[in-house]
Amino acid sequence: MNTFGRNFRCTTFGESHGKAVGVVVDGCPPGIPLAEADIQPYLDRRRPGKSPLESARQETDRVEILSGTFEGRTTGAPIALVVRNRDVQSGDYDALRDVFRPGHADYTWQAKYGLRDHRGGGRSSGRETLARVAAGAGAGRRPSPYRLAVPGRLIEVHAATDPAAMESEIRAARDAGDSVGGIVEVTAAGCPAGLGDPVFSKLDAAIAGAMMGIGAVKGVELGEGFGAARLFGSEMNDPITEAGFSSNHAGGVLGGISTGQDIVVRLAVKPTPSIRKAQRTVDTAGKEREISVEGRHDPCIAPRVVPVAECMLAIVILDALLEQAKYRGFSGE
Amino acid sequence: MNTFGRNFRCTTFGESHGKAVGVVVDGCPPGIPLAEADIQPYLDRRRPGKSPLESARQETDRVEILSGTFEGRTTGAPIALVVRNRDVQSGDYDALRDVFRPGHADYTWQAKYGLRDHRGGGRSSGRETLARVAAGAGAGRRPSPYRLAVPGRLIEVHAATDPAAMESEIRAARDAGDSVGGIVEVTAAGCPAGLGDPVFSKLDAAIAGAMMGIGAVKGVELGEGFGAARLFGSEMNDPITEAGFSSNHAGGVLGGISTGQDIVVRLAVKPTPSIRKAQRTVDTAGKEREISVEGRHDPCIAPRVVPVAECMLAIVILDALLEQAKYRGFSGE
Amino acid sequence: MNTFGRNFRCTTFGESHGKAVGVVVDGCPPGIPLAEADIQPYLDRRRPGKSPLESARQETDRVEILSGTFEGRTTGAPIALVVRNRDVQSGDYDALRDVFRPGHADYTWQAKYGLRDHRGGGRSSGRETLARVAAGAGAGRRPSPYRLAVPGRLIEVHAATDPAAMESEIRAARDAGDSVGGIVEVTAAGCPAGLGDPVFSKLDAAIAGAMMGIGAVKGVELGEGFGAARLFGSEMNDPITEAGFSSNHAGGVLGGISTGQDIVVRLAVKPTPSIRKAQRTVDTAGKEREISVEGRHDPCIAPRVVPVAECMLAIVILDALLEQAKYRGFSGE
Amino acid sequence: MNTFGRNFRCTTFGESHGKAVGVVVDGCPPGIPLAEADIQPYLDRRRPGKSPLESARQETDRVEILSGTFEGRTTGAPIALVVRNRDVQSGDYDALRDVFRPGHADYTWQAKYGLRDHRGGGRSSGRETLARVAAGAGAGRRPSPYRLAVPGRLIEVHAATDPAAMESEIRAARDAGDSVGGIVEVTAAGCPAGLGDPVFSKLDAAIAGAMMGIGAVKGVELGEGFGAARLFGSEMNDPITEAGFSSNHAGGVLGGISTGQDIVVRLAVKPTPSIRKAQRTVDTAGKEREISVEGRHDPCIAPRVVPVAECMLAIVILDALLEQAKYRGFSGE
Repeated sequence: MNTFGRNFRCTTFGESHGKAVGVVVDGCPPGIPLAEADIQPYLDRRRPGKSPLESARQETDRVEILSGTFEGRTTGAPIALVVRNRDVQSGDYDALRDVFRPGHADYTWQAKYGLRDHRGGGRSSGRETLARVAAGAGAGRRPSPYRLAVPGRLIEVHAATDPAAMESEIRAARDAGDSVGGIVEVTAAGCPAGLGDPVFSKLDAAIAGAMMGIGAVKGVELGEGFGAARLFGSEMNDPITEAGFSSNHAGGVLGGISTGQDIVVRLAVKPTPSIRKAQRTVDTAGKEREISVEGRHDPCIAPRVVPVAECMLAIVILDALLEQAKYRGFSGE
Repeated sequence: MNTFGRNFRCTTFGESHGKAVGVVVDGCPPGIPLAEADIQPYLDRRRPGKSPLESARQETDRVEILSGTFEGRTTGAPIALVVRNRDVQSGDYDALRDVFRPGHADYTWQAKYGLRDHRGGGRSSGRETLARVAAGAGAGRRPSPYRLAVPGRLIEVHAATDPAAMESEIRAARDAGDSVGGIVEVTAAGCPAGLGDPVFSKLDAAIAGAMMGIGAVKGVELGEGFGAARLFGSEMNDPITEAGFSSNHAGGVLGGISTGQDIVVRLAVKPTPSIRKAQRTVDTAGKEREISVEGRHDPCIAPRVVPVAECMLAIVILDALLEQAKYRGFSGE
Repeated sequence: MNTFGRNFRCTTFGESHGKAVGVVVDGCPPGIPLAEADIQPYLDRRRPGKSPLESARQETDRVEILSGTFEGRTTGAPIALVVRNRDVQSGDYDALRDVFRPGHADYTWQAKYGLRDHRGGGRSSGRETLARVAAGAGAGRRPSPYRLAVPGRLIEVHAATDPAAMESEIRAARDAGDSVGGIVEVTAAGCPAGLGDPVFSKLDAAIAGAMMGIGAVKGVELGEGFGAARLFGSEMNDPITEAGFSSNHAGGVLGGISTGQDIVVRLAVKPTPSIRKAQRTVDTAGKEREISVEGRHDPCIAPRVVPVAECMLAIVILDALLEQAKYRGFSGE
Repeated sequence: MNTFGRNFRCTTFGESHGKAVGVVVDGCPPGIPLAEADIQPYLDRRRPGKSPLESARQETDRVEILSGTFEGRTTGAPIALVVRNRDVQSGDYDALRDVFRPGHADYTWQAKYGLRDHRGGGRSSGRETLARVAAGAGAGRRPSPYRLAVPGRLIEVHAATDPAAMESEIRAARDAGDSVGGIVEVTAAGCPAGLGDPVFSKLDAAIAGAMMGIGAVKGVELGEGFGAARLFGSEMNDPITEAGFSSNHAGGVLGGISTGQDIVVRLAVKPTPSIRKAQRTVDTAGKEREISVEGRHDPCIAPRVVPVAECMLAIVILDALLEQAKYRGFSGE
């Protein structure tokens, strides 16, 4: 299912080398100012080709709002956002038509659907995240007394945690024709207490699903995360005082519901699967092949996960805010 | 929302100290043999009070099938499973009526709903997982050529990984009036390739949501998980040979779709928040209080997460199998 | 799918001659007073056996609230309502085990699922509506400044529109070993303007789906309904004045959204398919048979559709109120 | 919610005078041949301006497939279909900016959202149905042994049932500056037995919701429909013989599940609300106004409902086929 969210529903479409990538946002409240200029900066930030360490693909992505606004404001109608694909060098992928790239969705997509658009990963391309960023950018436009902010950053690359060391690790991997993984942390500040459901649709469960739903992510944790396994209850529990919680080991969620503190999420991002180094694989006929993935690839995809993770976190929280608003609006009748 | 799953939809209900806990399973295929005796062993396995290291609460839970079967087989109608609550000592909780236990959902539930059933955690109690286990037990009854198995186990407690050492850690925590966290690993064997969607409804995203939706879980990872952040692409990518994948760093999912290998999931479980040790908190009037949570509590909840995680993983996979069956059934018309 | 509603979600379960019939209501706002005594009168009203013209089946249905309330109020947790089946004379149905009753779901259920609970129609029995009435009764308990009322009544039986004439038609059909159809009208008074969506999830579309989803209903119309096909636009359009709409040909919905006027719905109910008169049919082996359906059947099912239609209309409107409350609550933050 | 369908999910977007109207179809099985040329004829058929009795608006609608196909076949990825709006004379609507047209969604949209795109009805325009037709055209492309056909036709206008008489009624209404209603009948031939669910998601309930969800529709009936209220059970029940059902009073659905016979649906369509004749209304300030709706309007909208109803019926049936395919595919594993 290509739709995310219960109340703020984002349906993305598009393939890496198709005509366009886009999203229909359904459930956005009416009256919110929204124009292309509000969304474009988020896409620019996500865009590759800005540093020598990133893919050189030139994506001069221009978003167009096709529907859902009138005189600069949302109307309550579905908002369709479309970005035309331009810098498409599909020929680059001809050699990959019948070969499954290791670490990619090539093999599994074929197993599932029986046919696939091999060009640039098709629907499974990271380019699809552009649609999520566009939707999340819209989410960020909502006026609110909460002043939600969702800053993310790269906190680790191949065990390095210092920015210069992280850059050095990425450079070394690139020069070796290889790639390297990393860890991203996103924090949501300004989220009120009371968001999320006690069972199944917990806020942290929704966050985990959203984050693991980003390509290349292999792990998600909140607050102490995996470190919680090494703590005592007396260390993990956040005492409550008259001034509020005195620590945030929980990462902003207790029993699936937000505490009002910062929501702190970390994502483990695997190394970019496309590497120049030779790898063993098979073709669609099952015959073994050696493959070296040429082309424009990020040696570390983690930095580019940052804006996507931010946008997904914003969408999850906005979705929960709308869910919670139901009760407020109802009792306030 | 108290419903989990798109095709195999489980709606749970019930509170720790209410009349009953149960689940309605909607979307179960017809013709599958199902009786109380098929479900009961899973509940018995989940039940506490079996070891000195577990809560002494005696839950002689007997499941009753209220609907959805006829002459021992499912009919395609919704299956209601109910377990009456019996060993209810609500009086134990009188002292907690107006106090928020640290690490629990007490504070957040109050923030969300404005009122709460304080007895034993109410709806946020771990007892609700009984309903998930019952549903998952039903899921396990499906006949299939795949012979899906979802064995789980405790692999770490407070950094200890040897069973005797783990038990010792739990005992020490208990004796100190404290609790301790752990890590659980669940593996799904026999899952065919092709399950899960490429975007949003990825199999690993669904698994992450399901696992983080279990109480006390603070982190989820597949395959190399957070370790992937320290690997090179040439280490992480699983080569494909004529005999299939030659390693499983991915943990059985690529691009959100199952590879046909084992699906390997790990969960970080925080220490049980209920501890005898004194903690600072506030009451519903906002006044500071010191609290010592007496009663029957597991010093380490991680072992009891195992059967719940197994059942949730079985449900996620069955749900994805049904989704995938749509295409098979359609093209086979 | 056995769930109805987007915000106020009702999942029913149970068969006519199984152990119980019930419903789980998920999404009910917290803080609403609710006890068995609030629901029971609705069930009593729906119950058959109250007049010589109704089925003599004695259903002393007692509802039990299994979850979702605490100290007499809803908590926001799912509300499970269960009614045990008692006066079950399954033996009556032995003769029907292998025969498809004309006009019933016997043949189609078998075609769909390959097996069926033949006793009293199984899941397709009208007894399932008991669960909807219980859910709708809960819906009626919500406190609101709107004072929503959903009175329904029988307005036509076999072309007769006078109550005495309708009763006479029913009596004549019964005495002839036959049954007869009728028309039910339900009006929702007190529904505010602004409920329903402009596309797909229109309020009238939701109402039509809910009403056609009641067994034996073959047609649904709002306002002028089929009569609108014989009107000019100048007759059909409701003029708007400073005092509001000056007529209600629309039946309370324009463009899928409520106008604030009464919502007027009519349902065509077919004659009870169970009749004593001999009918031709086949058995499960495909062999022709003659059948005469003995047992306790209403000669006209339309009167018993009234409370079900009322409850379904209440549920649809409450669901739309909650949906609309989202926007109110959100902008009011 | 702007999404229709559970398995074949159609999310439409766009306003009458915005940049484009479109649909994202999610859940379409892979491998189905699909090109713009397959969809265009359906749009051409829906297009107005083909007869002197229709709106003169020249909609040279050209559909573009933005995603979801590769080398002429569907891939399983979401299919985005977009039609740019061209012949937009928004100036025509300036006079209507602050006035609520009677019989339209103007008043109710304002009540719901607090602001609206007044141009041509905005999102509530009949032009949105273009997206549904595009989606339904795609639905019609599926290869199937069932050879589903969904022919619709106008069967009544202002009580006239003869084609010449119907045309004469429409002409007379137009010449009087008025409009007139009608009845549309759509039949689905080739639908297998077993589609639809026994409760809530009944096939006829889904059809009723889909049909009432088309603008201007005020009533829906299947088979005998409202006429069933005037029949005896012995007349209404369809006898079953070795050769199958010997009549089709039910209209192809029993107990919510298809019988395998033709599905026969009738829709009551109200007169076009836009008429030249003077009508009383109010403006957004609540002040009374007289309005005469000039512009290009169909004096009878019923003929143009035909292709929309056909497409919606095809979508509902395809959705149910996919749902049913789940069980087939599952048991066939």
